[in-house]
Amino acid sequence: MLILLTNDDGIQAAGLWAMYRRLLDLGEVAVVAPLTMQSAAGHGITVMTPLVTSQVTVAEGFTGTAVDGRPADCVKLAISQLLPRPPDLVVSGINAGANVGINVIYSGTVAAAIEAAFLGVPAVAVSLYLRNGIPPDYAGAAALARRTLDQILAHGLSRSQVVSVNLPALAPGQAPAGIRVVRQCTRPWVDNYERRKDPRGRDYYWNTSVFTLATDDDDTDVAALRDGYATVTPLHFDLTDRAQLEKWSSSQWKL
Amino acid sequence: MLILLTNDDGIQAAGLWAMYRRLLDLGEVAVVAPLTMQSAAGHGITVMTPLVTSQVTVAEGFTGTAVDGRPADCVKLAISQLLPRPPDLVVSGINAGANVGINVIYSGTVAAAIEAAFLGVPAVAVSLYLRNGIPPDYAGAAALARRTLDQILAHGLSRSQVVSVNLPALAPGQAPAGIRVVRQCTRPWVDNYERRKDPRGRDYYWNTSVFTLATDDDDTDVAALRDGYATVTPLHFDLTDRAQLEKWSSSQWKL
Repeated sequence: MLILLTNDDGIQAAGLWAMYRRLLDLGEVAVVAPLTMQSAAGHGITVMTPLVTSQVTVAEGFTGTAVDGRPADCVKLAISQLLPRPPDLVVSGINAGANVGINVIYSGTVAAAIEAAFLGVPAVAVSLYLRNGIPPDYAGAAALARRTLDQILAHGLSRSQVVSVNLPALAPGQAPAGIRVVRQCTRPWVDNYERRKDPRGRDYYWNTSVFTLATDDDDTDVAALRDGYATVTPLHFDLTDRAQLEKWSSSQWKL
Repeated sequence: MLILLTNDDGIQAAGLWAMYRRLLDLGEVAVVAPLTMQSAAGHGITVMTPLVTSQVTVAEGFTGTAVDGRPADCVKLAISQLLPRPPDLVVSGINAGANVGINVIYSGTVAAAIEAAFLGVPAVAVSLYLRNGIPPDYAGAAALARRTLDQILAHGLSRSQVVSVNLPALAPGQAPAGIRVVRQCTRPWVDNYERRKDPRGRDYYWNTSVFTLATDDDDTDVAALRDGYATVTPLHFDLTDRAQLEKWSSSQWKL
């Protein structure tokens, strides 16, 4: 089994290499990840500038290919050019921060997984909820991620399937509440910006929004993660609103 | 009616101002658009750096606010900070290039519309298919876009609804084949990269993929646009794969 491992935090990120170590006994693992941090890159791709690649060896002695581009670029380039054969699985993460609720759409971690699914490779995005006062434990998160991944594979993951896994913030010694299969919460979060004046008198704005796992319907990723569960959310990439399509298809349109 | 007009090609783009002129008799139009070209930006947002704004007056004497950020940033900032009240409608475009098939997911034009829908504002993304040998006619496209928009509004567009409109490439004097309500095609397109060596010996890759409207199922956006129709595709932003969710929810999971 050939596994492509990528992320959106960049090839030096602790979460990437923690996941790497936990995948080694599952198959051959090729790391192709962004050279720089690409958080909130969404599903951007690079079309007007070239993608420069380089071999990077991190402190632990692990080597991967860094791509000076976005997470989705890494997947496209790896599958099209860099890997000896199409991978059997793409894993994206472990992301430093949860990707639940509408953050799923901003997430470069999830975009990399969706790109893989476009191209017919099953993919799992893995994200760790970071919480003030709880130091991130990537080794522990990777162990949880691997147990979750094994179950996903046991349930069967077909070509073009995408799954987003989120792991709870656990204090040292704390166990997860369990694991839940839940839907994506689609509630918006409130935008806050702080306005300042630059030395030339132009207004500029800092995004000061704080994403919190607020109270929500119990069957969502947001609520389950808040309650200490690891979450599993199957995703798709057909953005067609089928109900609306059906309604509008049967009515009169003309130019 | 207050309309927020944005795009992903930047505030100087011809398509933006062609659309602007066609919206003026529909309501008050506020332009908040990226300072620079943001094609294929996907649904990226800016969280680590500030958003610098400036007033820009284009040659025709129209004025808007330029945001040194991504399309989704423009919508967030406009709704949260720049507009006197929440807009009744967001229009994104006219994009220079079709946004059909899986390009919907890479598109900054569509991302801006989806961001608006997140925030409870109905939104329409408008894109013009560019075809070699046919000079882009933004004025003509804007007229078509307006007729399409009027029909969408007549059918009723609720809060949080997103619609993607694509307009055909028409030679001078050519009429569109008609208008069709169609689903998003989810077929992948083949990635091509050209490998080169930089002066330091590192590999770099140019994306040489050419997106063509190939043969496809007749009920898709790709096929209808290829056949000269204007297309209307209702979109949603709930990425949960409901069928898989239901299947997995009823089976055994444990950590």
